Amino acid sequence: MRIDIALDAMGSDKSPEPEIRGAVLAARHLPVQVHLIGPETRLRKMLAQHMRSTNHRHLPIKIVHASEWISMEDKAAAAVRSKRDSTMRVGLKMVREGRVAGFVTAGNTGAAMATAKMVLGTLPGVDRPALAAVLPTVAGRPSVLLDVGANVDCKAQHLVQFAMMGSMYASHVLKIEQPRVGLLSIGEEETKGNDLTRETFPLLRQQPLNFIGNVEGRDIYNGSADVIVCDGFVGNVALKTSEGIVKLVRESLRESLGATLSSQVGALLARKAFLNFKKRLDYSEYGGAPLLGLRGVCIVGHGSSNDRAILNGIRVAAEFAQTGLNAHLEHEFTLHPPAPATHTGLPVQ
Amino acid sequence: MRIDIALDAMGSDKSPEPEIRGAVLAARHLPVQVHLIGPETRLRKMLAQHMRSTNHRHLPIKIVHASEWISMEDKAAAAVRSKRDSTMRVGLKMVREGRVAGFVTAGNTGAAMATAKMVLGTLPGVDRPALAAVLPTVAGRPSVLLDVGANVDCKAQHLVQFAMMGSMYASHVLKIEQPRVGLLSIGEEETKGNDLTRETFPLLRQQPLNFIGNVEGRDIYNGSADVIVCDGFVGNVALKTSEGIVKLVRESLRESLGATLSSQVGALLARKAFLNFKKRLDYSEYGGAPLLGLRGVCIVGHGSSNDRAILNGIRVAAEFAQTGLNAHLEHEFTLHPPAPATHTGLPVQ
Repeated sequence: MRIDIALDAMGSDKSPEPEIRGAVLAARHLPVQVHLIGPETRLRKMLAQHMRSTNHRHLPIKIVHASEWISMEDKAAAAVRSKRDSTMRVGLKMVREGRVAGFVTAGNTGAAMATAKMVLGTLPGVDRPALAAVLPTVAGRPSVLLDVGANVDCKAQHLVQFAMMGSMYASHVLKIEQPRVGLLSIGEEETKGNDLTRETFPLLRQQPLNFIGNVEGRDIYNGSADVIVCDGFVGNVALKTSEGIVKLVRESLRESLGATLSSQVGALLARKAFLNFKKRLDYSEYGGAPLLGLRGVCIVGHGSSNDRAILNGIRVAAEFAQTGLNAHLEHEFTLHPPAPATHTGLPVQ
Repeated sequence: MRIDIALDAMGSDKSPEPEIRGAVLAARHLPVQVHLIGPETRLRKMLAQHMRSTNHRHLPIKIVHASEWISMEDKAAAAVRSKRDSTMRVGLKMVREGRVAGFVTAGNTGAAMATAKMVLGTLPGVDRPALAAVLPTVAGRPSVLLDVGANVDCKAQHLVQFAMMGSMYASHVLKIEQPRVGLLSIGEEETKGNDLTRETFPLLRQQPLNFIGNVEGRDIYNGSADVIVCDGFVGNVALKTSEGIVKLVRESLRESLGATLSSQVGALLARKAFLNFKKRLDYSEYGGAPLLGLRGVCIVGHGSSNDRAILNGIRVAAEFAQTGLNAHLEHEFTLHPPAPATHTGLPVQ
């Protein structure tokens, strides 16, 4: 029994190539049926070409027509209003109508967030959906950082809701028992941090969470917390800073290894090491951040997603849907309702 | 002619060993005279021991007695008030009195900031001193990130002041012509970001700066800006996240290389590559963050500083003092006074 997943064919920077290749990979390797959403004629032609060139005939991929798409340059709010037949809206409507179990896009995060809020709505008790990044750690098991850019200028109550959603994601989808939840700050003591973290700290202690207190930036990758909660501005900076330094490290290492490994054998060894390294740290292997708190499954990938990242985004969507996380979240938020935020603030534009 | 630099002997996590070793390295390799500040009898004994073991007799190192020191666990505000004979206060008084050209500590950042503000005072036009981190980039030349933790909950006017100070530091100390100043945000367009960055953006455009607009976390390390301005909470998270991921990368690589390089030769090559890597990315090579905006030179190192980090902190202090940056800053702030912040907020505790 294949799980139906809708894929925005026009999201990534190089769309629709990575999406088409990713859809083919997913249809071959995962128990899914992919609904590729975008300009039908163009997609049909490109998909046929790609399948011919890779010697595939029958794959569980359907094409669903959408005449418009939202680009990275579009203002999210305006585009969501004006583009009524966008790939995002078509895909998320399929989720709402139960025709697919989840939607995957590598497009404009702000637009995905706004469209998903409008089309799917949020779960009861959730003021704002949060974008969660699943990241590798030294300890081997992943950590969940949220919010990573869907919400800036958060209130303490938003962070409490993020903590609850992140904890449930870690336990139900990543299968981490009693996930340790940390509040991202700039010192371990309760009094360290800014106005927002100092206000959030005591509220987190009141929730039915395994709250371990403040954690610091370095803890995101050392495995000392399973869930790390922060404002979307801070989370986005942390994530993109990580990207930047990984590139710097790769450059430095290429130079260092280049300088020391002069032989063919050396170059081969270095290449192998790089591949392992890439596998462990690259976005494409983690494939897309779930938007938590919606009445439905929506996964947002990096704009620079390649085919492997798309494949992994589809995998994450299918896993998310299979665990029934949203039903668990709804139950939890009914049992332990966090106080609503007095002011819901502005989403990213 | 040696430059006199005061060094807090009791700042780092493993003090005073790294400080004593670092002072000896500085006295041997730099044109400085080091004033080592701390418990006189203990320091004299340890310094003599270390000099004997390294076969040194006469080095330009003086010991200056201070009976107290502020630990990482101390609440900064309380400790600054109560410990009246602390190493930090003694050292910074020497700066104020013109007996040394600068002060270096690897101790409690909040306490260093508070003591420096109290003992030295700020330059005219500066509401809050900022802690600046000098970081490596892919482009080869360094970038300056500020504030990295001295000030949280900043107003737009604070960020404008940070931008001016960072730009002057980049041009006078790092010798970068017309430094490109970026505002750390989560999208390039002026409208992207949070309330603080949207308020700051137009103000930066009015200043006599080479302002290049918003930059993102990944730009900290790619060399697309020379100076990156942010709130101290965000900057501190970015810095510590970088530390965390460098550790993760190192672990991953050790495993990857370990798995592919089985021979002795391979291990040797890997070791060389690691050393280069370390040299390019480790804190100890960058050695301490200048506190900008004070009437005097104060450099704050990482709590985990080793002897090389201390040496480099002393080097940074000497360079800072030699450029006469503070006179230039005073001149610039008089010519182009930024508006003062209406509310000066709280320093880190």
